[in-house]
Amino acid sequence: MAKRPVIVAMDLEGVLVPEVWISVAEKTGIPELRLTTRDISDYSVLMKRRLEILKENGLKLRDIQAVIETMEPLPGALEYMDWLRERYQAIILSDTFYEFASPFMRKLGWPTLFCNSLVTDEQNNVIDYKMRILDGKRHAVLSLKNLNFDVIAMGDSYNDTSMLEEAGLGILFRPSENVKREFPQFPVAEEYETVKSLISGF
Amino acid sequence: MAKRPVIVAMDLEGVLVPEVWISVAEKTGIPELRLTTRDISDYSVLMKRRLEILKENGLKLRDIQAVIETMEPLPGALEYMDWLRERYQAIILSDTFYEFASPFMRKLGWPTLFCNSLVTDEQNNVIDYKMRILDGKRHAVLSLKNLNFDVIAMGDSYNDTSMLEEAGLGILFRPSENVKREFPQFPVAEEYETVKSLISGF
Repeated sequence: MAKRPVIVAMDLEGVLVPEVWISVAEKTGIPELRLTTRDISDYSVLMKRRLEILKENGLKLRDIQAVIETMEPLPGALEYMDWLRERYQAIILSDTFYEFASPFMRKLGWPTLFCNSLVTDEQNNVIDYKMRILDGKRHAVLSLKNLNFDVIAMGDSYNDTSMLEEAGLGILFRPSENVKREFPQFPVAEEYETVKSLISGF
Repeated sequence: MAKRPVIVAMDLEGVLVPEVWISVAEKTGIPELRLTTRDISDYSVLMKRRLEILKENGLKLRDIQAVIETMEPLPGALEYMDWLRERYQAIILSDTFYEFASPFMRKLGWPTLFCNSLVTDEQNNVIDYKMRILDGKRHAVLSLKNLNFDVIAMGDSYNDTSMLEEAGLGILFRPSENVKREFPQFPVAEEYETVKSLISGF
């Protein structure tokens, strides 16, 4: 008997590619760009601070993009995506920005990505950002369920847990100890092989 | 200023790949498989008849899949998809079945596909099919709009017009004269270069 078609919805950073801001901090030598929501819990305050830091250091969008171009997907991520897309539908749900993500998307074979946008001025300075929708990951999973898909969701962090709750199967990929402890209801995968087993067994 | 992110939603058969049943009819030498909704207007009656014809001719799912494996995307479709996916998000919305579409998806680089499923028995006979959702193309476009995407939709036939109506821009690709005449509100593209111009100008 046919079950409902399955879509696998995945976070990007920490799941398929490295954390972008941390890598940019390392490669630009600007440690303050390592700030995360652990340091400044309000995301909009954090993003404003990041944009200020870019401005203070004269970094334009193209400079950040040049750094991102040198980054690679996590080891095994491309092979995992190739395995996945032959068997299931896949969508990447991320809080990142299209302008940052596209070098990774090219390296991953252009999977469909739902994320957000940066606003630049005529000199290519990043002056603002637009979140496409609040709690967008969870809303996307809800929409896919309403279109009669069975949804598997995978993420690594607090901002993924609401979509994991909505999904038929939620998987934590390499979560921090805090996340693992606070969300014991989700199976944990440290390797893509474990993810493949969990998805195949759904 | 950033506009909203754009998703291009496209029909599959007639837009990116040939009509599957017509090609299967030609390659199997079973002309009755050429029947379309122009001959039998009720889709469920048509599909039941097709499944009967497969059974009468002893054709299993793997036989149809072997025929489909020999088929190629329309000339220029792969180059168009490569162009598109570097610039926009893309989703294919089709009334076909995953079991038929996957050879095409591999040739097109595994874009995300929303479609339907076949039901087979243990002998690999196609015994039924499951439509995932009624009016699924339009519902998918509505969902994407609710997720705050700007949606461009493209199709060639009557079953595409409801999603074209919902989209911010609806494009008819190589439509029949009837469809063109009945839906004069939609721009018509006969070539992918025209599609690219229409999308870029949106």
